[in-house]
Amino acid sequence: MTTSGDVATANNKQVILRDYVTGFPKESDLIFNDTTVDLMIPEGSKSVLVKNLYLSCDPYMRIRMGKPDPATAALAQPYKPGEPIYGFAVSKVIDSGNPDYSKGDLLWGVVGWEEYSVINPTVSHFKIQHTDVPLSYYTGLLGMPGMTAYAGFYEICSPKKGETVFVSAASGAVGQLVGQFAKIMGCYVVGSAGSKEKVDLLKNKFGFDEAFNYKEEQDLNAALKRCFPEGIDIYFENVGGKMLDEVLLNMKLHGRIAVCGMISQYNLEDQEGVHNLATVIYKRIRIQGFVVSDFFDKYYNFMDFVLPYIREGKITYVEDVVEGFENGPSALIGLFHGKNVGKQLIAVARE
Amino acid sequence: MTTSGDVATANNKQVILRDYVTGFPKESDLIFNDTTVDLMIPEGSKSVLVKNLYLSCDPYMRIRMGKPDPATAALAQPYKPGEPIYGFAVSKVIDSGNPDYSKGDLLWGVVGWEEYSVINPTVSHFKIQHTDVPLSYYTGLLGMPGMTAYAGFYEICSPKKGETVFVSAASGAVGQLVGQFAKIMGCYVVGSAGSKEKVDLLKNKFGFDEAFNYKEEQDLNAALKRCFPEGIDIYFENVGGKMLDEVLLNMKLHGRIAVCGMISQYNLEDQEGVHNLATVIYKRIRIQGFVVSDFFDKYYNFMDFVLPYIREGKITYVEDVVEGFENGPSALIGLFHGKNVGKQLIAVARE
Repeated sequence: MTTSGDVATANNKQVILRDYVTGFPKESDLIFNDTTVDLMIPEGSKSVLVKNLYLSCDPYMRIRMGKPDPATAALAQPYKPGEPIYGFAVSKVIDSGNPDYSKGDLLWGVVGWEEYSVINPTVSHFKIQHTDVPLSYYTGLLGMPGMTAYAGFYEICSPKKGETVFVSAASGAVGQLVGQFAKIMGCYVVGSAGSKEKVDLLKNKFGFDEAFNYKEEQDLNAALKRCFPEGIDIYFENVGGKMLDEVLLNMKLHGRIAVCGMISQYNLEDQEGVHNLATVIYKRIRIQGFVVSDFFDKYYNFMDFVLPYIREGKITYVEDVVEGFENGPSALIGLFHGKNVGKQLIAVARE
Repeated sequence: MTTSGDVATANNKQVILRDYVTGFPKESDLIFNDTTVDLMIPEGSKSVLVKNLYLSCDPYMRIRMGKPDPATAALAQPYKPGEPIYGFAVSKVIDSGNPDYSKGDLLWGVVGWEEYSVINPTVSHFKIQHTDVPLSYYTGLLGMPGMTAYAGFYEICSPKKGETVFVSAASGAVGQLVGQFAKIMGCYVVGSAGSKEKVDLLKNKFGFDEAFNYKEEQDLNAALKRCFPEGIDIYFENVGGKMLDEVLLNMKLHGRIAVCGMISQYNLEDQEGVHNLATVIYKRIRIQGFVVSDFFDKYYNFMDFVLPYIREGKITYVEDVVEGFENGPSALIGLFHGKNVGKQLIAVARE
């Protein structure tokens, strides 16, 4: 920290998008930028200065790295080349011109990928009220991904006790929770993931009834039939492409598919074709896309629901924490190669 | 009519499936069989002998012509090679061992493709109570296709006044009604069809706001953008494939796609891939497959709804009536080449 005139300043490293990304993002697509930040909000401003503690790496961020596209505009505008990328984070208030926020408050919501941010809180910024749980959980279990699992499973999947549930990318930030919610509901739950270590987590830590490594299955249809001899009532879709095609063949009558994400498709120039869609007629299937921000008004209901389970140890959460802002880009990019085990986040600062 | 012992008999021509069909069905896949039928139900039997007046040609019948397939089994079992095919029809009771049916009663429901059938009525057979409307309407407007349009539009599409609606195969048995229902609801409605004649019908007879000939559009995406500059709230899907892919790009936020049929796919060995499914996330789209038989308990509600509109001339219906049982196979096959203009049916006998 230095002072410039009367105002203290600090170095503020940022991560900048070099240019729109085509195909898989590379570390060279994200460049560091050294700036400084005034550590005080100017008189009269209603903004809030925060120090960013934990940055969240989420698959949808890939969509923001691409060129402007009318198809994706309804979800997310692209990042601007030459400017910092942004995403969900846990932050601490350093100074505030906003009467609702005071120095020392903790919050989660969207900030730039930088050490300090000046924000104007929106309906997508939430004050953190419970600190008896790990603060980093507000990037995952208690933040956007947790709310995604909650809204997606309970609001979109219409689950009933005894139903069969399949979750892809099941050890990820959202999937591991969907599986645990489904078990709480009394469902039979199977997950797919991309390594033996992840499959072990699903079975031994998150309580999935079955799990398989999709990379080791010669025939996904056969794997699904092995795990679901009677078929699938609910598919929580995180990956898209080939997996969706095979799942369609294994759905039960009146099955539901909640489409949360399609990470297998985000880096492809040409999206894979899904061939078995006529099944939605034969089996009266509902496919429903959703975006978590439409459900943010239910966030405190979610907290009331989930906190007791966490405190009783009935819901657990696995994080993949990378230390240091300088390791952020590689962690984010690793997500698209399945390198993370559990929720990927970056610990920028502990306080 | 002849007599055999004490029982009168009649010639009873049937249409038999030669063998499971691959690709587009040909006339040689359907062969005639000459049989005779007793014109009296034996003592003690609860069956009903009917004379078939109008046979309905419906796209789903192609699914029954294929090999047994676990994917389609939930909708329909295949026809058996060497046995008569069957489908919806309007029939007249000749003799009955069932106390609910009397000689002279008219009914619609599933019968064999033959001049006379012995049936055991199920929940999918309905007595015809109103004969001030054309009897043939019970194969279309007042039968299975009408009920399909009613359930699909009102139950699945969740329509609201002022919304934008797109209907493919819009001059067909179901599509022409969906368009008229949507206009009654106060929606803006556009239809696609495969000839100038059909497009003219849509605009000039059924009251669609716009219509286009998909075979003459170089770029379906551009055609949809021209007709829906603000996007589509509701897509009533009858065709699948390429059209669905382009529609996905033109849906509005929270749009709904009711999947009634995918006639473009039924004759293909390999189904076309649909590439733009990730749009369901970005735009929070619901895709819902449905099958009319799940809604047959609402048939009499539908009749109460639709009959006044017909009597007041506010709903109209175009039929493509082929005369004579012997022309049945070519009419059915013509459906898959879009030869029919309006609801395809066969007049086997007038009474």
